[in-house]
Amino acid sequence: MTSPLISDAAVQTANTLDLADPLAHCRDRFSLPEGVIYLDGNSLGALPKGVNERLHRAINEEWGVGLIRSWNDADWYPAPQRVGAKIAALIGANAREVISCDSTTVNLFKVLCASMEANPTRDTIVCEEGNFPTDAYITERAAKLYGKRVLLANQDTIEAVIDEAGDRLCTVALTHVHYKTGRMLDMQRVTALTHAVGGRIIWDLAHTAGVVPVQLHAWNVDYAVGCGYKYLNGGPGAPAYVYVREDLIAALDQPLAGWHGHAAPFSFEQGYRAHPTIDRLLVGTASQLAVISLEAALAAFDGVSMLDVRKKSESLTGLFIAQFDAQLAQFGFELVTPRDAARRGSQVSFTHPDGYAIMQAVIARGVIGDFRAPNILRFGFAPLYLSHRDIVNAIAISADVMHSGEWKRTEFSQKKAVT
Amino acid sequence: MTSPLISDAAVQTANTLDLADPLAHCRDRFSLPEGVIYLDGNSLGALPKGVNERLHRAINEEWGVGLIRSWNDADWYPAPQRVGAKIAALIGANAREVISCDSTTVNLFKVLCASMEANPTRDTIVCEEGNFPTDAYITERAAKLYGKRVLLANQDTIEAVIDEAGDRLCTVALTHVHYKTGRMLDMQRVTALTHAVGGRIIWDLAHTAGVVPVQLHAWNVDYAVGCGYKYLNGGPGAPAYVYVREDLIAALDQPLAGWHGHAAPFSFEQGYRAHPTIDRLLVGTASQLAVISLEAALAAFDGVSMLDVRKKSESLTGLFIAQFDAQLAQFGFELVTPRDAARRGSQVSFTHPDGYAIMQAVIARGVIGDFRAPNILRFGFAPLYLSHRDIVNAIAISADVMHSGEWKRTEFSQKKAVT
Repeated sequence: MTSPLISDAAVQTANTLDLADPLAHCRDRFSLPEGVIYLDGNSLGALPKGVNERLHRAINEEWGVGLIRSWNDADWYPAPQRVGAKIAALIGANAREVISCDSTTVNLFKVLCASMEANPTRDTIVCEEGNFPTDAYITERAAKLYGKRVLLANQDTIEAVIDEAGDRLCTVALTHVHYKTGRMLDMQRVTALTHAVGGRIIWDLAHTAGVVPVQLHAWNVDYAVGCGYKYLNGGPGAPAYVYVREDLIAALDQPLAGWHGHAAPFSFEQGYRAHPTIDRLLVGTASQLAVISLEAALAAFDGVSMLDVRKKSESLTGLFIAQFDAQLAQFGFELVTPRDAARRGSQVSFTHPDGYAIMQAVIARGVIGDFRAPNILRFGFAPLYLSHRDIVNAIAISADVMHSGEWKRTEFSQKKAVT
Repeated sequence: MTSPLISDAAVQTANTLDLADPLAHCRDRFSLPEGVIYLDGNSLGALPKGVNERLHRAINEEWGVGLIRSWNDADWYPAPQRVGAKIAALIGANAREVISCDSTTVNLFKVLCASMEANPTRDTIVCEEGNFPTDAYITERAAKLYGKRVLLANQDTIEAVIDEAGDRLCTVALTHVHYKTGRMLDMQRVTALTHAVGGRIIWDLAHTAGVVPVQLHAWNVDYAVGCGYKYLNGGPGAPAYVYVREDLIAALDQPLAGWHGHAAPFSFEQGYRAHPTIDRLLVGTASQLAVISLEAALAAFDGVSMLDVRKKSESLTGLFIAQFDAQLAQFGFELVTPRDAARRGSQVSFTHPDGYAIMQAVIARGVIGDFRAPNILRFGFAPLYLSHRDIVNAIAISADVMHSGEWKRTEFSQKKAVT
C-alpha cells in the first residue's frame, strides 16, 4: 500500500515513532485482513486472535458435550463478574464495581432509574444535547417514568446547566468522549461540580474504555456504562457493562428485577431480594457465547499500560491531524475534533458536504472509517493494532481519492442500510 | 447403556415407537455426547450441528475480515428480524409479529409497560404465584412503576381472579407451561376470558416454543415473550424474543427506547420516533454471535411439523410416566406433572425429599435432568433428538440408582453453585 502522495519525511517520521512504540507487539494479537487500514475500531473493534479458538471450545466442548453441566463445570455462571473485573482494570474501578451484561442502553436505564429512586425529592435530570441518540432517548423516557424534567446541555454549557439545576439536580448523564467530534469532557471536574450541588452522575464510556485512562473510583464517579464492541474488541454487539461505585451498591434499587440479580437465584423465591453485590445489576441469563468472546478479547490488553495506550493514541491522532492539514484540508474538509490532544479521545472527525460518498470511496480503497449523518467522516484509532505508518498511508490514500475525483462515481453515493 | 432393569417388553414397545417416528431423522441434526441421555433440553437445548461452522464463519470471515462492513455485507443488521420470523413460524405468529432481542425478563418488562401505557385507567395486574421467579419479580416491579396493584393467582384460580379483577383488569401475565410441574394452561381460553373483561394478556413461552404448537395470532394473544436457549437450542443464554399482535404494534409505547428501535436509527435524530414495525421492540445492538447461533440452531426445525413434534412429545412423556409408575414410584417419588397429556408440556417432574442428591447421582450415570428447589426432579423431552429407547434407558438407570442406593454417597449431596 504505497502512494506517490506519501512524502519520504512523513514515512521517516512514522517509522521512527513505530520503532519506539512500546505497544508495537500488540498488533500481532489481532487478526487483521490484508489490504485494510482499519480506522473504525470505535465502531467495531478488530478480531483478537484468541477469540475463535476460545469460542470453538465453548461451542463444541462446553455446550456440545458439557451441556447444562457447564454452568458449573466451565464456570459460565460467574463469567459476567469475571469480565466486569477485567474491564474494571481498564477504567480505574475496583473489580467488584463492574459487571458485564445487557446493552449499554439497558444498563443506562438501570442506573438512571437507580439515581432517581435514590433521590426522589430532586426533579431535574441533565443530559447532553447532541449526545449519541440512544442516551438521549432512554434518558428522556426514564425521566418521564419518574416524573422528572430534563434539562439539555451541550459540551460547552454543561457546567452552567448543572449550576442552574442547583438543588433540584437529581442526575447528570453524559458521554465522556463525543461520538461525532471526539471531543472529551473533563470527567473529574464535571463529576465534582455535580456532587457540589448534591446530584449524581452517570458517564457513558463508549468511546473511552480501552483508549482513555480514567479513574472512576478515585474520581468518585457514581455510575458508568459502556459497550464491549468498540475499543474492547468483544465482537459485534458484544455485551455492555455497568459500573456502580462500591458504596452505592448495597442500596441500589432499579426496576429491571430479574432472577440473575436476586440474592439467591437458584432458591426460586417468589419475592425479589436484590443481591448484595454488583450482581444486582444482572437481569436475565447472559449469552455465554457473547460474554466468552468479550472475555477472550480482553486478553489483548494483558500487560498493557493504559498510560502507554493513551500516549500512543495522542500520537496517532496528532499525526493524523498533521497529515490531514497537509494533504486533505485543501479539499474543503473541516476538522471538528479538538487540536488540543488533552481535549480529544482516540478519534478524529471532519466534515464535508459530500462526506458520505467520499467515505465510501475511501473504504473501497481499504481505508475503513465511517460516516455519521449528516456530514461527518469519522476515524477511530485503536493503539493496540495501528501503527503510525498506517496513519500516513491512510491519509495518502484519502488524498489520492480526492485528487483523482474517484469518489464522484455514482456507486459511492448509493446509501447502504447501515451507514 | 443397558441395565438388567429394562424389560424386553419395554424395549420392544420403545423400538416399535421409534421405528414409526417421523422425526427420528432429526436426531442427526444435533451433536450429542456419548454416554448421555439428555433430558434437560428445557434448561439448555443441545448443540445443533450447523452452529459451530456458522459461527466459525461469522467470527473469522464476517467479523475478522469484513469488520464493520459486515453490518451491511453479511446482513447482520436484519438478523433479529430474520430470527424473529423463524420463531414466529413455530408459535403461530406472523413473521412480522416477532423479533429476537435482549433477555426474556427485559422483553417482559417492555410488554408489561406497553400494556400499562395502553390502558392507564385500569389499575390491576394479574400474575401467577409460583410462576418462574423472574416473571414475578419484573411484573411486581413494573406494576410499581406505573402505580398498579398486583393480584396473584395460581393455575387453579386464574380464571376466578381474572373475573374478580373485572373492569379494573389491565394486564394478565402468565407462563403457558409451568417450569416446575410442566402443567399447561389453556392459552386460548384464558386469553378469551381476559379479553372478555377488557384486559390484555402476556404469555411467557419459555417451555412452549419448539415443543407445544400454539396459535398466537389466531388465538388473538396480545403479547408473548420467550427464550432462545431451551427447546429452540440457541445456545447458553441465547437471545430471547418478543411477540406483539400486528394490530397493537403501531401504537405500542414502551420505556426502553433505544436507537435500534428508532424509525431511522442511522439518522441520529435527537428525538425518539418509534419504528413503525416490530423493530420498535429493539433497544441496543444485538450480539451478532448470539443471534447467529440461534439462527443456525433454528435450522434444526426445517421441514418439521409442530404437530408431529407435539405428538412425539406426548408419546415420550407418556412413556416416561408409565415407566416411572412401573419402576420409580415405589421409592417415594410423587408425580407432579398431569397424567392427562393435554394438560402438560414436554416435561415430567416428580418430587422426592432427597431429590437433590438423587438427581446428582442420576446425572453422574449420564441421565441428565435437573433439580428445582426445594424437592423437584425435572426432566424435559426434546422430540427432535430423543428416542423412546432413551426414555426406557433413562428410567432403568434411575431405578438402578435407587435400588443400589448409590445416591446416598456424600459426593452427591454437596451443592453446586448452579443446581
